[in-house]
Amino acid sequence: MKIRIPATSANLGPGFDSLGLAISLYNYVTIIPYTCQSISIKGEGSNRPRLKVNNVFVSVFKEIYQELEGKKQNFRFEFENNIPFSRGLGSSSAVIVGAIASAYYMADVKISKETILNRALVYENHPDNIAPAVYGGFTTSIVVDDFVKTLKKELPQNLKAVMVIPDRAMSTAHSRTQLPKSYHMADVTFNSSRVGLMSAAFFSEDWEILKYASWDKVHENRRMKKMKELFGVRKMALKNGALMSTLSGSGSSFFSLTYKKDAQRLREALKKSFPNFKIEVFDFDNSGFEIT
Amino acid sequence: MKIRIPATSANLGPGFDSLGLAISLYNYVTIIPYTCQSISIKGEGSNRPRLKVNNVFVSVFKEIYQELEGKKQNFRFEFENNIPFSRGLGSSSAVIVGAIASAYYMADVKISKETILNRALVYENHPDNIAPAVYGGFTTSIVVDDFVKTLKKELPQNLKAVMVIPDRAMSTAHSRTQLPKSYHMADVTFNSSRVGLMSAAFFSEDWEILKYASWDKVHENRRMKKMKELFGVRKMALKNGALMSTLSGSGSSFFSLTYKKDAQRLREALKKSFPNFKIEVFDFDNSGFEIT
Repeated sequence: MKIRIPATSANLGPGFDSLGLAISLYNYVTIIPYTCQSISIKGEGSNRPRLKVNNVFVSVFKEIYQELEGKKQNFRFEFENNIPFSRGLGSSSAVIVGAIASAYYMADVKISKETILNRALVYENHPDNIAPAVYGGFTTSIVVDDFVKTLKKELPQNLKAVMVIPDRAMSTAHSRTQLPKSYHMADVTFNSSRVGLMSAAFFSEDWEILKYASWDKVHENRRMKKMKELFGVRKMALKNGALMSTLSGSGSSFFSLTYKKDAQRLREALKKSFPNFKIEVFDFDNSGFEIT
Repeated sequence: MKIRIPATSANLGPGFDSLGLAISLYNYVTIIPYTCQSISIKGEGSNRPRLKVNNVFVSVFKEIYQELEGKKQNFRFEFENNIPFSRGLGSSSAVIVGAIASAYYMADVKISKETILNRALVYENHPDNIAPAVYGGFTTSIVVDDFVKTLKKELPQNLKAVMVIPDRAMSTAHSRTQLPKSYHMADVTFNSSRVGLMSAAFFSEDWEILKYASWDKVHENRRMKKMKELFGVRKMALKNGALMSTLSGSGSSFFSLTYKKDAQRLREALKKSFPNFKIEVFDFDNSGFEIT
């Protein structure tokens, strides 16, 4: 079997731990029953020998496969990793979702996408990346008693994602444990009202209102302070046709949504100003992971 | 001229200061140029003589009319008030929106609904009631530099509002100034993620998910503690077919959303348990204020 899992961009400004979307940048994993355990890695991670011994995909896959089959079986795993590590593009969610879905498939046990999502929550804790990795499109999610409740909206073909992928990860000093523990009422209302409007904007395809709805007062600027160029990225993106421009997950990548007609022009502008960063234009993914 | 303005229910659980919807319970005001200023009041407020001297509708109307016309003119105002005062049903928003829209109409100056909404914000400060009073339907709003940005979704005919209207107002000790000034990150995320899902639920007409999306950790329970019967109202409503059941604005009314087929049954159940409260079933209003 071969599975592909999309990269995802979460938070989208105010939607901390809840909003996300999938882009057409994929990891592929081919899995074959084998005489011994065997791993090959192309792309991201190919230069990290540790990933051949300590591989999260393989350990999650084996754990679930054994739970379902009750016996051990060796496999060969061929990874073709295109989602950069540690850049806020959902690479770890892709690993977890991919491993769970593959294990069920190889054990020949039917499973709904919803169940895969709920199992992924055990490993990932927050639904904002795993939901779009499972369903594709734009997703708005909550967690209720360890279950994820999600609504999904497909994204149209006339929109593009312009991703700015910096040459380095963001310092872990910005992890969520470093964010303030409490927030003023005014900031709470600022964020929650924008999450509501943003969600409505995606579901009603009112893209123009995103420039008002996509601002955050909880996490984004605090995180961006550790890679100050990102303020310049956002400013330039919004001046050059981006409908919204937000930190991707906890960074360091930056996501901009544009009309198709504006995507290449924005890419060129960003490339000129940020020559050390990778700037790529992607379609959105509306399917989530797929097994072929 | 005659104007009608709908009652509104705001917050809707997690949507503090941002979500609202309009119900088909209306105030009517007839305005006629007259030799002297004259006020008649039927319904709510008819027993408050002070409203004939100190009337917010009349003072806002006159302020704007004079600004537009540059001269004074006397009017007769005939109020037919059906929206209860101080029960969280948007009566003050109805007054402000009605006065602004009427003043423009009487001065024969064309004005967009958006401009009426932005003028109303000067008097009301929060967009959650004025937006549905202007547009009707379900609205999700933010304020950006003193302007309101709103998206609206019409509500279908197979849904009803079951309103529980208590026999008394909620103590002013629960006004917003009495709410905590800061909130824990977990509660912020709890609320903002639910606002996103709720907004998506209304826009995609996924009513079943509202029972998960409609919970709040910022204001609702704190306010309900001052009228403890409301916990019983919510519990009973959710057990008897309500898709969601939330404090209306800052109370004391309680709003439940039901399918049409369940509305009367829920009303009967609530009437039996809360004989001192008024329980009414309403359609939703999808038009906002209307001048005839």
